Amino acid sequence: MNSIVLAMGNGKAMFGDEKVSDSELLTFVDPHGANINAFDLSVLRGDGIFEATTVWKGYPVSLENHLRRLANSAAMMDMPTPNMDALTRGVEQVIEQYDDPEPGPLLRIIVSRGLDEGTGVGKAAQRVPTVFMFLDAKGTLHETDPISMASMTRGYPSDITSRAPWLLNGAKTLSYAFNCAVHRECDRRGVGDAVLYTEDGYTMECPNSSIVARYGDMFVTPDPSIGILHGTSQRELFAWAQQEGKKITYRKLPIEELRDADRLYMAHGGWVIPVNELDERSYDYDAAEIEAMNDAIHTGRTHDDALNIAPSMAA
Amino acid sequence: MNSIVLAMGNGKAMFGDEKVSDSELLTFVDPHGANINAFDLSVLRGDGIFEATTVWKGYPVSLENHLRRLANSAAMMDMPTPNMDALTRGVEQVIEQYDDPEPGPLLRIIVSRGLDEGTGVGKAAQRVPTVFMFLDAKGTLHETDPISMASMTRGYPSDITSRAPWLLNGAKTLSYAFNCAVHRECDRRGVGDAVLYTEDGYTMECPNSSIVARYGDMFVTPDPSIGILHGTSQRELFAWAQQEGKKITYRKLPIEELRDADRLYMAHGGWVIPVNELDERSYDYDAAEIEAMNDAIHTGRTHDDALNIAPSMAA
Repeated sequence: MNSIVLAMGNGKAMFGDEKVSDSELLTFVDPHGANINAFDLSVLRGDGIFEATTVWKGYPVSLENHLRRLANSAAMMDMPTPNMDALTRGVEQVIEQYDDPEPGPLLRIIVSRGLDEGTGVGKAAQRVPTVFMFLDAKGTLHETDPISMASMTRGYPSDITSRAPWLLNGAKTLSYAFNCAVHRECDRRGVGDAVLYTEDGYTMECPNSSIVARYGDMFVTPDPSIGILHGTSQRELFAWAQQEGKKITYRKLPIEELRDADRLYMAHGGWVIPVNELDERSYDYDAAEIEAMNDAIHTGRTHDDALNIAPSMAA
Repeated sequence: MNSIVLAMGNGKAMFGDEKVSDSELLTFVDPHGANINAFDLSVLRGDGIFEATTVWKGYPVSLENHLRRLANSAAMMDMPTPNMDALTRGVEQVIEQYDDPEPGPLLRIIVSRGLDEGTGVGKAAQRVPTVFMFLDAKGTLHETDPISMASMTRGYPSDITSRAPWLLNGAKTLSYAFNCAVHRECDRRGVGDAVLYTEDGYTMECPNSSIVARYGDMFVTPDPSIGILHGTSQRELFAWAQQEGKKITYRKLPIEELRDADRLYMAHGGWVIPVNELDERSYDYDAAEIEAMNDAIHTGRTHDDALNIAPSMAA
């Protein structure tokens, strides 16, 4: 049974214009083997980008928005432009190989700049991005159990992103040591996750998810221009809210105001998860509502609307 | 000829107490092959640490200080403690395999937390750090040509490190996407490297090196408590300065004061390199002095003294 499908992508086709047949797009490899060169920039420098989502019963949730965000990350990282068609075909091929009964395996697409040209191996090689993708039913999968959170500083002021683009705030890079460290800090504090804020007190995001606050019928999330990712699952949630006649808005959201929300939602990887505690304050949640949100997302009901959700159109 | 030597280390011996014979310490592998699993935390998260130095005519420059700093990074990252003896023996074995005529190949030691236990492959595997090291004569090697610099903000205030240890400031992690981005920004600006400063205007470090300012006979470098690495080559340079009857000090150094230095030095990987320009201001340098510094470092003259250089003893 193929419970973990790992495929190495054709970098010239997926990050370039080279047209290849379906059979030349991916090479399926043994997930337990060694498939990456030690001089790859993913290994040596975390110098690459990625996206992750759930494939629910064969449907890759928010795939277009994930690929658009991958393209945005690539641009911020001065990497070549992803070929949307080739990447989409690659994802389809990976899904076709999967045959585990688990309905919601995790898909991840990883791209590095290629081999490090500062090393002898990289200097002698062609400059081609390293691309691979996997579908995994055996790792940590999403649950909708309510999660507790603590807020922590990200260390940056809220205006840093436009002043210092070299910080790569808003790019989804492979340099996740900080994100992993925040999760270890959460373990130490006995909470499930963290919400980060700027030094001047504005809400940002969680280490690998978006945060959405609800005040009555208004759903609010921080504007991505503060230097955070534009959430893919958050956009699906906003699409659901609009379909249900609620209001949505992107804005600067003081962390004190986040704490005053009626409800809090964490969104990532194709899932909305209720937050039941932030900084030792408790929040209500409605399990039926959470199920309705996730059903709408997983069945594709919110898909088309989510493609058009953006800060400028929200009101 | 072995111009690039790559060896996979025994993680249980190098980051643990398992005693192994010399023949079980390392496995030499083809540098051009695939040796890393795609689910390794180095690949997926940049979740690991490293050190790099020059091996000059068989002598690994500042090796003890590099291994001590690796241990410090490991502690900051909640990773197991490195076994200094096993790592030192590993380095010696790698050096023995090298036979290129180049006298100064680069040595790098890379350690990740191991396979990602959030993935199916990692969940099924043992929790052992992934360790590898290489000696490379064919990549970019150090030169002592004078280098131009621009200063750029790091985005953090100077007091962030004690308040937010989850930012990992001062740990040498594999998450170097930011450092790579700064170097691309340098390319855009037409300068050789960058010196980073805090939001409140204090000098930090360069993306992969230390900065040292000279005022008359006084050599100054920022105190590492500001959230930077404690430079290994900078300590060799400080040892040289003391041997030559000069003064050394670690302190908070405003970026304006850095610009007012008589001379500026960049130090990394076992080399001191003169800075001839910072923010379009020119600096003198003495090629003979630079050569004397590097000779002292490479012949081991400064080695023992450098082991005792630290902020608390400087005056």
